[in-house]
Amino acid sequence: MKKEKKDNKKTSMNRRQFAKAALGGLGAAAASPLALTEAIAKAEADEKKVQDFRKNCVTTVENPILVDESRYQRFSTANIAFNAYSRDIGESHWAPYGRNLIKNLKQGKGGKDIKVGTFDDARAVNGLEAAMQSGNRLTGNHGEGHENRGPLAWDNHITSADLGSFPKSELPPEEFTKQVKIAARLGGANLVGVCKLDHKWVYESTQRNVYSPDTPETQKIVFRDVDRPQETKDELIIPSKVKYAVVMAVEMPRTLIQSSPGPAAGIGDALGYSRMGWAAIALAEYIRCMGYTAIPCKNDTALSVPLAIEAGIGEPGRMGVIITPEYGPCVRLCKVLTDMPLVPDKPIKFGVEQFCNYCKKCARECPSKCITEGEQTWEPRNECNNGGVKKWYNDYKKCLGFWDENGMSCTNCVAVCPFTKGDMWAHHFTEWSIDNIHASHPIWLTLDDAFGYGQRREDLDVFKRDFAPYGMDPDKMPR
Amino acid sequence: MKKEKKDNKKTSMNRRQFAKAALGGLGAAAASPLALTEAIAKAEADEKKVQDFRKNCVTTVENPILVDESRYQRFSTANIAFNAYSRDIGESHWAPYGRNLIKNLKQGKGGKDIKVGTFDDARAVNGLEAAMQSGNRLTGNHGEGHENRGPLAWDNHITSADLGSFPKSELPPEEFTKQVKIAARLGGANLVGVCKLDHKWVYESTQRNVYSPDTPETQKIVFRDVDRPQETKDELIIPSKVKYAVVMAVEMPRTLIQSSPGPAAGIGDALGYSRMGWAAIALAEYIRCMGYTAIPCKNDTALSVPLAIEAGIGEPGRMGVIITPEYGPCVRLCKVLTDMPLVPDKPIKFGVEQFCNYCKKCARECPSKCITEGEQTWEPRNECNNGGVKKWYNDYKKCLGFWDENGMSCTNCVAVCPFTKGDMWAHHFTEWSIDNIHASHPIWLTLDDAFGYGQRREDLDVFKRDFAPYGMDPDKMPR
Repeated sequence: MKKEKKDNKKTSMNRRQFAKAALGGLGAAAASPLALTEAIAKAEADEKKVQDFRKNCVTTVENPILVDESRYQRFSTANIAFNAYSRDIGESHWAPYGRNLIKNLKQGKGGKDIKVGTFDDARAVNGLEAAMQSGNRLTGNHGEGHENRGPLAWDNHITSADLGSFPKSELPPEEFTKQVKIAARLGGANLVGVCKLDHKWVYESTQRNVYSPDTPETQKIVFRDVDRPQETKDELIIPSKVKYAVVMAVEMPRTLIQSSPGPAAGIGDALGYSRMGWAAIALAEYIRCMGYTAIPCKNDTALSVPLAIEAGIGEPGRMGVIITPEYGPCVRLCKVLTDMPLVPDKPIKFGVEQFCNYCKKCARECPSKCITEGEQTWEPRNECNNGGVKKWYNDYKKCLGFWDENGMSCTNCVAVCPFTKGDMWAHHFTEWSIDNIHASHPIWLTLDDAFGYGQRREDLDVFKRDFAPYGMDPDKMPR
Repeated sequence: MKKEKKDNKKTSMNRRQFAKAALGGLGAAAASPLALTEAIAKAEADEKKVQDFRKNCVTTVENPILVDESRYQRFSTANIAFNAYSRDIGESHWAPYGRNLIKNLKQGKGGKDIKVGTFDDARAVNGLEAAMQSGNRLTGNHGEGHENRGPLAWDNHITSADLGSFPKSELPPEEFTKQVKIAARLGGANLVGVCKLDHKWVYESTQRNVYSPDTPETQKIVFRDVDRPQETKDELIIPSKVKYAVVMAVEMPRTLIQSSPGPAAGIGDALGYSRMGWAAIALAEYIRCMGYTAIPCKNDTALSVPLAIEAGIGEPGRMGVIITPEYGPCVRLCKVLTDMPLVPDKPIKFGVEQFCNYCKKCARECPSKCITEGEQTWEPRNECNNGGVKKWYNDYKKCLGFWDENGMSCTNCVAVCPFTKGDMWAHHFTEWSIDNIHASHPIWLTLDDAFGYGQRREDLDVFKRDFAPYGMDPDKMPR
């Protein structure tokens, strides 16, 4: 990311002004100045109706994920980077992370090269991050390794014992689908979709000794013809009748994430995890009240990204996460697995793949260079990827290596993604560019950069603003 | 409340149209038709800038609560209506409540006289309420009796052990105040204010055997010159240095509360409790990170309403709760007590007392007639009130009696309050009326009723709408 500036506003010009200026620079490549101006006008109008964007600019597709079934195998949480990298370095990867965090903190820093201010300033921003993590901790830290534990219990009744004791309600799937979507939204989800639960996205096993350098202590996750979820020493058992996933996205406040790789970005990340925990738990509780099985999940139990793709939440991007029409990649995902009969949503496309082919800004701004600049392939980079799916494969151990060195997590890829900006100008501009200036991605990057997007926000900005609750963006909410 | 109508929109006319029609009816009392039209125009403009209303239309006061110090004594949670009424009836008041809830449910009802639809319909709305309570349960049900327990622990470090271990930061109180307000907002608070902690609002003791018909098992809440909060068998000990309260209000979605006394209103109430729990916990965690003591509270430990008045969150109303400029009484309150040096806010006035003197709509629409139609006094109605404060005293055991009979909680008073409507037309209209037609409250009530406000929304409406996350109103959020 670029060196931060005191005031982003001063550096970015009006889009229309810029379009004019840029057209000169585009020179021979620019086929139609008028069309560009129109594209920008269209985008400016769309900014005012983000809710309509999904309706108007998104198409549905049938098979959004290409899988080589002869080769694909279910993944284990033992191989997620947090666990694998901890084995590589012989201690929990949070240990060097924590040591560097404290070392930086004492120097008023919130990252290896990020001066926040005084010690107290750095402590305050880090403290806000820790505070916003509290909901995540209370609902099973990040999820992985906490399957069927505490509030993430698979056969729980927090409040619903009475209602859950009636025989299950038999409503049309359309009705149930409406209901679970309302429950998800009221539980805090910004976006919600439904898909059939493809077993291949369910983890093959989970590592209980999370982030340990030792040999993984795992339990298999299996499907069996049982009435209720069960657990033995070796197995977590999901009833075979559990055939759907309700997938939810919670917004991470964009303006916080834009401080990556500084500590204010961690606040946004923490808010995502804290909110997702309760969203999954609340929705599961609702489903149980109607007499059905519900398994609330954060990062645990199944891969969230393919489920979210299949549930129509968004489209996969180069950086390996989901890109949503409303928030770009600036979301966290959670889900509830259930036997309640539901109507699946359609997967969507809105030009992400095409855009990611050209843009590569995430790869350029990645401090560890862990994001591929290449094409989609079927080949994993290491044990932390699951091969046999056509996608962009990135090196997540490299990514974590930077976190540890930085003493602070990093979401540069999310922060700089043009889809994170919170408006749709990039989409229309891209449409126009693809038609008019093929292979011109350096030009868009220049445009995106010149607009002042992707500059790091100062961490102390967090104390100078007037946030909506949870730092959410009111302009993106349904009314 | 009136019999519900299928579609409120059809019944309410445009305000301007109504103003014209009403002026005829007002007859001789109406001094200035032009001024009325202007008042309504002004109000309509204000609706579009709720955030500005607090800045522009609210004045500050010095002593918002009149107390007879010779008479006032600290209150005990043993005497809150939930506990006192349970003793009166010889069982937990939730027992008859639950029996009636299930009886109603089987008949497709969600309240004594409230037909929701089929059994499944009623189950779905009740289920949504139960689901939205899950966050409340996880953070110590409502708070009372859960002081210093679980996530409400008084000397806890959920995530902040490292940061909290440094000597406390010494920043100017102005800085700390800015920081805690941001932490509150990011933790989900819609409104936040600070007051000095007057010991008289701290409960004298708390009943641990909550909602029990048996003799209360209480612990005293005392202030002592200790470094950290402590607990013995008989006492909860707050360090004397704890001198401030940060008070937070979370919005209850107005359009849900307007189904009172039906089950959809309970969803709004549950959301308030679930959100307030985490807001208090997250803020407490932040304060601990900076090296200070923080006691997170829901309804427990201290009376929320007087603290919220003193922190400038709102003005007290006839129904006994706080009325805020932004949400009227449609909020829940929580707070964090701390020794962090802070700058108190000023208490506010915006005409609530004057309005409540005339309006009395809450009293009229209260099914149990527990809300006084009389003047403010110093006299408690029973042991559930704390005498010696000048205010409206209501009979909260009568209120709960209705809940139990109804098999469903009731928030009619909140639902019908003109300040709940979510706009400020009432304020300006009142200003105008007070100037022009003294003692005319029946006329405003007629106007308010005729606008279609205060009609019960059908419970199943909840599944027909497109909610923002947590059902919040995006138009009332800061941008």
